[in-house]
Amino acid sequence: MGSVLEVRIAKRTGFCYGVREAIDKAKESAAAGKATHTLGQVVHNEGVISQLQQIGVRSVDTLDDVDHGAAVVIRAHGVKPEVFDRAEARGLEVIDGTCTWVIQEQRQLEELVEEGYTIVLLGTPKHPEVVGLLGFAPDAIVVDEEEDWDRIPRRKRMALITQSTQPPWKFEKLAAFMVSRAHELRIMNTVCPVTIRRQEDTLETAREVDLMVVVGGRHSANTKELTRLCGIVGTPAMQIENARDLVDPTPF
Amino acid sequence: MGSVLEVRIAKRTGFCYGVREAIDKAKESAAAGKATHTLGQVVHNEGVISQLQQIGVRSVDTLDDVDHGAAVVIRAHGVKPEVFDRAEARGLEVIDGTCTWVIQEQRQLEELVEEGYTIVLLGTPKHPEVVGLLGFAPDAIVVDEEEDWDRIPRRKRMALITQSTQPPWKFEKLAAFMVSRAHELRIMNTVCPVTIRRQEDTLETAREVDLMVVVGGRHSANTKELTRLCGIVGTPAMQIENARDLVDPTPF
Repeated sequence: MGSVLEVRIAKRTGFCYGVREAIDKAKESAAAGKATHTLGQVVHNEGVISQLQQIGVRSVDTLDDVDHGAAVVIRAHGVKPEVFDRAEARGLEVIDGTCTWVIQEQRQLEELVEEGYTIVLLGTPKHPEVVGLLGFAPDAIVVDEEEDWDRIPRRKRMALITQSTQPPWKFEKLAAFMVSRAHELRIMNTVCPVTIRRQEDTLETAREVDLMVVVGGRHSANTKELTRLCGIVGTPAMQIENARDLVDPTPF
Repeated sequence: MGSVLEVRIAKRTGFCYGVREAIDKAKESAAAGKATHTLGQVVHNEGVISQLQQIGVRSVDTLDDVDHGAAVVIRAHGVKPEVFDRAEARGLEVIDGTCTWVIQEQRQLEELVEEGYTIVLLGTPKHPEVVGLLGFAPDAIVVDEEEDWDRIPRRKRMALITQSTQPPWKFEKLAAFMVSRAHELRIMNTVCPVTIRRQEDTLETAREVDLMVVVGGRHSANTKELTRLCGIVGTPAMQIENARDLVDPTPF
């Protein structure tokens, strides 16, 4: 204990611009004196959530919990198009915080559906981004881990697209797997560039240090992937949500 | 020597239907009394070539060697579209023996060019099929072995297509490699199904026997690949062109 000489921070850390923008939009709305809610937690981070609560921004699970006339922030993950319709029907002010990257994904899905492709979506089935995406391509086949992939049929024309935060190596592996399942395979590489850069920076830092502390949501696939990457380069890593989790002094 | 108890033949061997059709077309034309030539050897097989010569079908290297009014057979590999124009201008009768699979490839290349994709073609640069395909997509980037792949640029929209007789594993590996080079990657799996079946049958037979004799053109990439596959399952294999090459009795 007490042997830590230097603490290095990976080059690019913290929230991506998509999440930051959604938070900012919620804050601006509240600052303008509007009753403001977020549909789901805008980010799984206690500090930010309590900050927002202090200025009156409450997270709701459903539009039914928002009063007529109040503002509701759609978080970066995006939602099904029906949600916008329902919000309008209920007279709510919608503040769209959908990440530009996710909006592009949604548009591409619509295009692929229109062009008649059998669509495979790599993603975590219940993840809000995936639930939202399925609003644009209800027949898309969602697959996650490799044991799922056998469910992918053989079709003449198939398309592959991914939830933005899936690891790039998994997406590439699935693409190679699908090459022999279709005569024409159209791949939309919708892995978020910020996610990729975080992973690159994690690998770079992990190679230089003796121990990595990965800070993020306990159940966040992103955070778990960063922890896993440290293991790949052979650097011990501990995953925490906040400073309170640092209870064991021995690794330091 | 003399210890061979059983000889097994892989399930599907011999010429593919594309090559057989081109040979048949040349024979029919000669049988109908027309002066008939093939543009290049219709198949790299001495027996077939000498059979064709006996009925007067001679292989020529260029259209200039064909007399006005005579027939010229385009072999299964296909040719650049200019060749058809030149043949017409010289008053030749063109008998198109282009494999239906290659015709499909050519059409797909035309479409991809029209849609503005940066096209990568997996193939052997001087192979006649590749030379012909480049007539439909002159700007396509031809890559072969893995050390070539670094030449592939990063572009927003890229397409990948392959010479029909490339090994499927190489095509899948290149597809995975290209996933991170483009935002949208359109993959046309033009690996010939007959080639794939030959490879599957070779693997199946190789697993059951003590020695494989692979018969085919010495320089044929297809034949070399079949020999390589035997090695992968650990069965010794010898590659020959014809019975005369069986000079060493010891393996038997």
